[in-house]
Amino acid sequence: MQEPLVFYTNPLSRSSIVHWMLEEVGAPYSMEIIEFGDAMKSPEYLAINPMGKVPALRHGDVVVTEAAAICAYLADAFPEAGLAPPPAERGDYYRWLFFSAGPVEMAASLKSTGFQPSPEQQVALGYGCYEHVIEALVSAVKGKRYIAGDNFSAADVYVGSHLRWGMNFGSLERRPEFETYCEGLAQRPAQQKVMAFIQQAMAEKEGAAN
Amino acid sequence: MQEPLVFYTNPLSRSSIVHWMLEEVGAPYSMEIIEFGDAMKSPEYLAINPMGKVPALRHGDVVVTEAAAICAYLADAFPEAGLAPPPAERGDYYRWLFFSAGPVEMAASLKSTGFQPSPEQQVALGYGCYEHVIEALVSAVKGKRYIAGDNFSAADVYVGSHLRWGMNFGSLERRPEFETYCEGLAQRPAQQKVMAFIQQAMAEKEGAAN
Repeated sequence: MQEPLVFYTNPLSRSSIVHWMLEEVGAPYSMEIIEFGDAMKSPEYLAINPMGKVPALRHGDVVVTEAAAICAYLADAFPEAGLAPPPAERGDYYRWLFFSAGPVEMAASLKSTGFQPSPEQQVALGYGCYEHVIEALVSAVKGKRYIAGDNFSAADVYVGSHLRWGMNFGSLERRPEFETYCEGLAQRPAQQKVMAFIQQAMAEKEGAAN
Repeated sequence: MQEPLVFYTNPLSRSSIVHWMLEEVGAPYSMEIIEFGDAMKSPEYLAINPMGKVPALRHGDVVVTEAAAICAYLADAFPEAGLAPPPAERGDYYRWLFFSAGPVEMAASLKSTGFQPSPEQQVALGYGCYEHVIEALVSAVKGKRYIAGDNFSAADVYVGSHLRWGMNFGSLERRPEFETYCEGLAQRPAQQKVMAFIQQAMAEKEGAAN
């Protein structure tokens, strides 16, 4: 009955968002490590994701790409894991999932390119400016254990991963509200398991390079 | 029983995405027109959306911002309208909603700023390049009446609006696959009603300016 779940990933990428989500879901899955470069642009992999990027997920005949989409998909496909609010109560859930996949992603990645949009360019970009994005995100997590209601959800996996990654790599500034929220999420066994996996992958890569 | 729906909008903005979605839902709603400039940055409106942007939606005590989030929220809050696939079948639905809210939005709006990322900057931007985004979107709509399964859904409202807007304003190139898909969607009475509303608002604005 259960269709196989295949997770296409590279441990040294933001695929860790999906990895954490899969561990929260708790269903069995297999992992295919796709190396950057030729493997990620091979015809076999482009048939899975025409963007030639990881992560991607195959669930039976269904292919899903985009980390946020995979998180939302898994939450709905495995309702027994309780990783999404009931359908009628998803205001904050969708709001902050899409806010992070859109404005936060754009503001943070443009910051890492060094591009500084003029006021006119800011209008064209639609999200306004980096500072407003940060303030809106602060207001979303301030004083909250979870971002969408009283329970942990896929939105915490996605937004929490963005915040942890962004603060680590300097594309999102450190704010006490972000750190408190991320510290709470870091207590989850599923996140700890994925962090350990990534550290081992990094250590092996360093070992191979020496 | 039915909580009031309030739609914060400006007819000369991409709020038309949400307007179309509300017309597809078919539930009664009220519209608050927020003028650009001071009104959109007023304390009253910032309490609704701290980003000071339209669209926003209030449904009882729930506030949702981000056009894609509002579309997904409304589809789930009004299941009788049949605007989302069943929860277990949402692979394409979430994939193309998030692909359009993330990579498409970023690629198209950066194109309108004139910023041309170098290969290194493309890596930092995460979405790759404009051309790959276009090709992925072509593959998503090619030969399809609807983007996520056999039925019209909120994903068609959102992706179809992006395509129509992008082709009209030159931020997305005209492709036969996009035009065929958009022509199909243009037959929907809800979209036609919103287009007529926008044309009237534009005519009134021109009249006032003369």
